[in-house]
Amino acid sequence: MAPKNPLLVDCDTGIDDALALLYLLGDPDLDLRAVTSVFGNTSAEAAAMNTLRVLELAGRPDVPVAVGADSSTRGTARFAPHVHGADGLGDTTLPAPAGAPSATPAAELIVRLAREHPGRLDLLALGPLTNLAAALRLDPELPRRVRQVTIMGGAIHHPGNVTPAAEANIDNDPESARLVLRAGWDVTLVPLDVTMTELLTERHRHRLAACGTPAARFAAGILRHYLDFYESTVFSRRVAACHDPLAAAIAAGDVSPVLAPAVAVDVDTGDGPGRGMTIADTRGQYRGFPAQDAAPVCVVLRTDGTFPDRLVERLSGATAASHDVA
Amino acid sequence: MAPKNPLLVDCDTGIDDALALLYLLGDPDLDLRAVTSVFGNTSAEAAAMNTLRVLELAGRPDVPVAVGADSSTRGTARFAPHVHGADGLGDTTLPAPAGAPSATPAAELIVRLAREHPGRLDLLALGPLTNLAAALRLDPELPRRVRQVTIMGGAIHHPGNVTPAAEANIDNDPESARLVLRAGWDVTLVPLDVTMTELLTERHRHRLAACGTPAARFAAGILRHYLDFYESTVFSRRVAACHDPLAAAIAAGDVSPVLAPAVAVDVDTGDGPGRGMTIADTRGQYRGFPAQDAAPVCVVLRTDGTFPDRLVERLSGATAASHDVA
Repeated sequence: MAPKNPLLVDCDTGIDDALALLYLLGDPDLDLRAVTSVFGNTSAEAAAMNTLRVLELAGRPDVPVAVGADSSTRGTARFAPHVHGADGLGDTTLPAPAGAPSATPAAELIVRLAREHPGRLDLLALGPLTNLAAALRLDPELPRRVRQVTIMGGAIHHPGNVTPAAEANIDNDPESARLVLRAGWDVTLVPLDVTMTELLTERHRHRLAACGTPAARFAAGILRHYLDFYESTVFSRRVAACHDPLAAAIAAGDVSPVLAPAVAVDVDTGDGPGRGMTIADTRGQYRGFPAQDAAPVCVVLRTDGTFPDRLVERLSGATAASHDVA
Repeated sequence: MAPKNPLLVDCDTGIDDALALLYLLGDPDLDLRAVTSVFGNTSAEAAAMNTLRVLELAGRPDVPVAVGADSSTRGTARFAPHVHGADGLGDTTLPAPAGAPSATPAAELIVRLAREHPGRLDLLALGPLTNLAAALRLDPELPRRVRQVTIMGGAIHHPGNVTPAAEANIDNDPESARLVLRAGWDVTLVPLDVTMTELLTERHRHRLAACGTPAARFAAGILRHYLDFYESTVFSRRVAACHDPLAAAIAAGDVSPVLAPAVAVDVDTGDGPGRGMTIADTRGQYRGFPAQDAAPVCVVLRTDGTFPDRLVERLSGATAASHDVA
């Protein structure tokens, strides 16, 4: 099996970011080169510390962590302690990490890694797109240097989660999102249309809790908080969305979308009721999505719903990640 | 059976407007009091003449027709001859009507009828909402005088049809649509989510063509043009949307939606990529759409797909409309 491409994850860790990192680190073939942090679920500083905690828990203290933007292009920042806990990790009060963030700012690290791996670096963005936009401004050639970008964000034929139309990652910095989605690189967008239909359950939490490893027990602990939020506020039943882990699995090539047309995507950066909305041109849906002129984004509109089982299998160590070796 | 409430139809006739009028006039219990015309599929003047043609074809030259707004609140107007033909009726070149439009402007007629039938008048809007907005400005008490308003327009969890996000009726005058949707009356919105899934087919056209009546033969003729447009431009197969007839059937109480939550609806009146978009707050979809504080609009999100058969039955005269008399 060929080694995977080097990967940089940009995230606002966050319960589902933590699950995504644990998922990725469960694959021994995955080449995680760095994690950059951004405001969103929590502050950029707290997200970096949480990332270090998760990396150390997974036995990967060697992965560098860089702190990124602490507010949007407009200077706004809104965190989500009601979703992710005051500490961003479901109030699980993990001890302080042994390591510390890198001195290199996130955007600079993105640009540097892209130059070190020309045409090979994969980016996975799990928070607001402020760092990626900053990297694009630092290096306008970045879209030609990077192999692919996978973004958890947006809502296409689906309600938003912070306004009727907008998803949180995009809404936190619509101007950066618009820049990133229209930069002309190979972008895959993983919106609420799929992350709200791949559902984690109480059964999944039990399975993780029953597992002996510290990582699985930690995952069960943060998932409890996540299920509490989703049950009380969103679903009225004990299930939770699978936002960032699903995007991670798609970035890693582990999940093949059932439907993911390449379509033009714009972001509403006005100040009306649609601010932060991702507007994908899906009008071709009746005729197999014919090719469009504008720089397309691959928008994942349907997956098969089986990912949460695979996520929990991976986190339980029940399957080797590369068990398909001939 | 109690007589139905008096009904005023506001439309931009238009192939599917014509089908909707023929459908309504096929019900002997329906109390159609007036039709007002508005720009949209064609000019307001042409829409009025087409309406007179359809009324005369259906043997109802007594129904008054009033001409309404020929452009939006902003003074813009864009017609759709590529969809509805140069004459608005699929280039079927029906002769000029015997009658003429009323001298009363559309908005004034709406206000007058609402006052003549306090609490009883139903409004069915099948075009841009410019006339209804004008009527609201003439009489701010109108929402209390009218029984219910049914509107064909918008796109909720569905692509638009004139932009990636916007449906034509709303996009033709977003400012008026916003005013009408938020006026606090009993409004039902029938968006593309359902009108693009209730599909007319070549089989329906054959059935109409085989029928002896002038109205059915006319319906078959305009449907041919409509199928041509939808096949070549939208579906790549010989089916057509059922926009206005479906809204008419819902207004008349003939079709009961499968899913039609009462939710807040806003319209994007900015100049960004979402202009003309209807933004419904459907975030409660996971928990049975709990009641919302804002003045809600009943948004039809799902119907059972059987309406086109019933439309064609009605237009073929195959069933009496009130065959359920005990």
